[in-house]
Amino acid sequence: MRLTDERELRFVLYELLDAEALCARPRFAEHGRETFDAALETARQIAGDLFAPCNRAADEDEPRIENGRVVTLPDYQAALDAFFEAGFGAAHVDAGLGGMQMPWTVAQACFSQFLMANVAAASYPMLTIGAANMLAAFGTEAQKTTHLEAMYAGRTYGTMALTEPQAGSSLADIRTKAEPTGEGDYRIAGTKIFISGGEHELSENIVHMVLARLLDAPPGVKGISMFLVPRYRPDGEGWPTVDNDVRLGGLIHKMGWRGTVSTMLNFGEGGDCRGTLVGEANRGLGHMFHMMNEARIGVAMCATMLGAAGYNASLDYALERPQGRPAGAKDPASAPVPIIAHADVRRMLLAQKSYVEGAFALGLTCARLVDEQATAEDEAARREAHLLLEILTPVMKAWSSDWCLEANRLAIQIHGGYGYTREYPVEQHYRDNRLNPIHEGTNGIQAIDLLGRKAVMQDGAALALLRREIMATVEAGRESSGQAGHAEALAEALDRLDRVTATLAAHMAEDAEAGLANASVYLAMAGHTVIAWIWLRQALAAERGLAAGQGGEARDFYEGKLAACRYFFRWELPTTATQAALLESRDDTCLAVRPEQL
Amino acid sequence: MRLTDERELRFVLYELLDAEALCARPRFAEHGRETFDAALETARQIAGDLFAPCNRAADEDEPRIENGRVVTLPDYQAALDAFFEAGFGAAHVDAGLGGMQMPWTVAQACFSQFLMANVAAASYPMLTIGAANMLAAFGTEAQKTTHLEAMYAGRTYGTMALTEPQAGSSLADIRTKAEPTGEGDYRIAGTKIFISGGEHELSENIVHMVLARLLDAPPGVKGISMFLVPRYRPDGEGWPTVDNDVRLGGLIHKMGWRGTVSTMLNFGEGGDCRGTLVGEANRGLGHMFHMMNEARIGVAMCATMLGAAGYNASLDYALERPQGRPAGAKDPASAPVPIIAHADVRRMLLAQKSYVEGAFALGLTCARLVDEQATAEDEAARREAHLLLEILTPVMKAWSSDWCLEANRLAIQIHGGYGYTREYPVEQHYRDNRLNPIHEGTNGIQAIDLLGRKAVMQDGAALALLRREIMATVEAGRESSGQAGHAEALAEALDRLDRVTATLAAHMAEDAEAGLANASVYLAMAGHTVIAWIWLRQALAAERGLAAGQGGEARDFYEGKLAACRYFFRWELPTTATQAALLESRDDTCLAVRPEQL
Repeated sequence: MRLTDERELRFVLYELLDAEALCARPRFAEHGRETFDAALETARQIAGDLFAPCNRAADEDEPRIENGRVVTLPDYQAALDAFFEAGFGAAHVDAGLGGMQMPWTVAQACFSQFLMANVAAASYPMLTIGAANMLAAFGTEAQKTTHLEAMYAGRTYGTMALTEPQAGSSLADIRTKAEPTGEGDYRIAGTKIFISGGEHELSENIVHMVLARLLDAPPGVKGISMFLVPRYRPDGEGWPTVDNDVRLGGLIHKMGWRGTVSTMLNFGEGGDCRGTLVGEANRGLGHMFHMMNEARIGVAMCATMLGAAGYNASLDYALERPQGRPAGAKDPASAPVPIIAHADVRRMLLAQKSYVEGAFALGLTCARLVDEQATAEDEAARREAHLLLEILTPVMKAWSSDWCLEANRLAIQIHGGYGYTREYPVEQHYRDNRLNPIHEGTNGIQAIDLLGRKAVMQDGAALALLRREIMATVEAGRESSGQAGHAEALAEALDRLDRVTATLAAHMAEDAEAGLANASVYLAMAGHTVIAWIWLRQALAAERGLAAGQGGEARDFYEGKLAACRYFFRWELPTTATQAALLESRDDTCLAVRPEQL
Repeated sequence: MRLTDERELRFVLYELLDAEALCARPRFAEHGRETFDAALETARQIAGDLFAPCNRAADEDEPRIENGRVVTLPDYQAALDAFFEAGFGAAHVDAGLGGMQMPWTVAQACFSQFLMANVAAASYPMLTIGAANMLAAFGTEAQKTTHLEAMYAGRTYGTMALTEPQAGSSLADIRTKAEPTGEGDYRIAGTKIFISGGEHELSENIVHMVLARLLDAPPGVKGISMFLVPRYRPDGEGWPTVDNDVRLGGLIHKMGWRGTVSTMLNFGEGGDCRGTLVGEANRGLGHMFHMMNEARIGVAMCATMLGAAGYNASLDYALERPQGRPAGAKDPASAPVPIIAHADVRRMLLAQKSYVEGAFALGLTCARLVDEQATAEDEAARREAHLLLEILTPVMKAWSSDWCLEANRLAIQIHGGYGYTREYPVEQHYRDNRLNPIHEGTNGIQAIDLLGRKAVMQDGAALALLRREIMATVEAGRESSGQAGHAEALAEALDRLDRVTATLAAHMAEDAEAGLANASVYLAMAGHTVIAWIWLRQALAAERGLAAGQGGEARDFYEGKLAACRYFFRWELPTTATQAALLESRDDTCLAVRPEQL
């Protein structure tokens, strides 16, 4: 019934993605349904008891500077400490590093509960885990020994310090400098902006993953290196007590997501900021992108869970709020009905459900691919999982953030005037979620990544693989009397996507700028096609559930899946035909318009 | 170039709508291009000098209660006093009442400048003028003598007190009571919510237009009457000094539009709140709806001008912000280009332009119909203007509020991370504009109004008239080599709208609830069709301008209009075919889904 019910989690994890099968692999041999369910239950409890209650408070009382220190809400400390004490910082991490060694899929399912309860609070561990995973992949033994366990345990928090004021999305233009000290480390100097979690007192130390240039680096993205820059350096005894000359340049005041402190940081104003190289010199961007799939899945999950929070709130409201009467039952003396009795309200709920549960299932599907990529037994399977992730990542990041924001818009609309007030949670979801189409690469950047790179790389191998996966679902759908029509519609949408890809690839070969000009429409079209696939898979799983003959709430749950699938195929997927026609026409309206005409 | 340039105002008023022709009518005989332009220039000055500077400040420092009084920003008083002193409260009003006796079209063009600069401040006079117009239409001579001039001059402000906590959009369920005192007035008792401008110290007095029930009133909407309830009653000498027992129940804290105080008001807690009847007993809802076209045009203009403000801000940003390089010009040593050089940024600008300038031209087209309705020489023309307004009003209210909010979403996206901060104005536009799809009848209510009432009333007379108007533009478009294709596309869209209307009308006749279930899609489809019409008209006017042979900026301006028209026809109008197919299929997905499945 609700995305965040245990029921929904069970459906996606076990009925759709067969997460239990992962336990056959050596890495996850200690696990089984019981440990997964126990972790999910603990996550739900901590999220409900400690994260949710301070979600609004942190919005109203955002981090501020007092006596030179960043002050955050005291309840945040309690919530985050509980998160790390329960081991969620290390859910996916090797047992040897103090981790639970869970599949990433299950770790993400657990984490989704924290995101839904309080996305701003959950951002601190999300950033920390992301930075730690990067370090685990590319760090030196010394870096890992010093920081990794502390990060996964939440004693040290992490950040990603990429963006600079003058460069924005154009990482080629970053200017932060790194100069060898001759002692094995580097003197870092430069300014970074929009650094989430850049300064606070929530943890003993903070390590910043900083993109910077060596003095002799070539220009552009091929001259970017990654450095680990701690807030405090170790003293003679190894304790992090020495100030590392990372200065807070100011706080950024945002529309939403206010509980996460956003900072401008000045590195090395005093000439004494030290960092150590992560991975290879001049390969920093590649290292960063290696982790980007996980980071972008993370953003999509943030968007999804904000969408889920709004969906839940508006469903509750629609069930409880009496107002008006059905068309055709206008006796004013009759009792008003709950607004869910109005078809237009159900439309707004069903739309939200289709966006949010579609995005959620895609998110965990991608998480499952992360597990495949890391632990599948044969190498071909690992390579394929990687390739699928490559092409699904920009789709998922952009689609989930665009459409779960739309879900939040609808959640407000269901609440009417009340939804516009700060007495109800939905206006905050809407403000919080507006960030997701922007950060970790704007959705315009995702569009270029998809069309200009992922769809055409290796002679279209990733797209061909995606096609194969989707066609497998189409074939299964054709076997079902209830889903055969949807299967055909999906096959048609896929054909359209192929044709459009061929048209645009040819166009790009002639003229890169013209061919890429309408990439955002291509991304939107690919997104709807992928989500239709995800919905058909969910519908088939629901039919299996119904066939197993469960009644009552289980039946309602599965029928709800079928209704949302039907909604998506009838109300949403047909837009891809319009998009395809526009793209096939190689329309140049936006390319041709001149600035003076705007 | 910019919606708010004098150039855009001149284009819409004079080249598109021939506002000068109104001066041939006796009521406007004192006016001409010079007086119109002078009024516009004064409006631009006051809006720029006094309204714009406090727009952000009022968002950050919203009205609050101090010592039992509502405190608003001091700069608001100065801005509003200047507004009324310059006569904008009475721009359209009879000279005998101290007014300028301007066409409503020109008054709205002037007012648009205040809305764009500071929608929350401009709401006070908007509400006051709306209440005064209602009083002018239905009030007794005594009511008019006491209040009208004071309201148009800004000494007394007005409110509309409709909504009650338990009733929301369902006015049939309001419970506020009115009991005759035997002295010619009524004792009012009840609670109203979301009353904008409900209490403040900006004016000497406030009059509330309150919907309430007489004790013997029939249930439902046929038992609602309208009462004028002042904050202060006149004392023995006629001065408004006697407290009228209207109590502030609390302030509503909103996501945006914060400068406009929103209140819960308790009438008659002490048993001594007096009101006088406006118009006829039990006809209050009809009186209110009589004014509703103007009020809903007002909401659409609020949405439009917030869209315009975001468009202007993001265009400025895109012209000035250097970032990245064009695809195919990847030399990192080359200088970054302004982001307007990226086709995807131009897409987001052109989309905004098409929404905002489309909505603006529709808004003033409707204002022109208000003038026709009031002053056209023959009665048939007045009736036709009224009928067109009837059908265009829900379209304009919903379309402008949905799509100019979408424009604001795009304005943020162009700004990237900066747009999400409170350092830039676009995040406030986005928050402010979220109200417009909700108030003055949610867009769901507009959809039912359009499909259930306006499209089918008088055997479809309003829709037939709209068709005739649109076809006149289609015929003109067919004469233009540049617009003939658009003219055909518009004719096709219109045919689709007719077919769908017939299908849905038949469906409603069988089953009102099922026929109305997808009304929101019908409204969206009608909206895009109407805006395509408005764009074709603008394109034809631009072609006339180009044919007149002006060069330089004038040429850029007209070519910009042609580009935006082309954008709308290629990127937007085709969605109506998808919507039509859904509606013709009489899809019942949303109707059929049960609450337990959600």
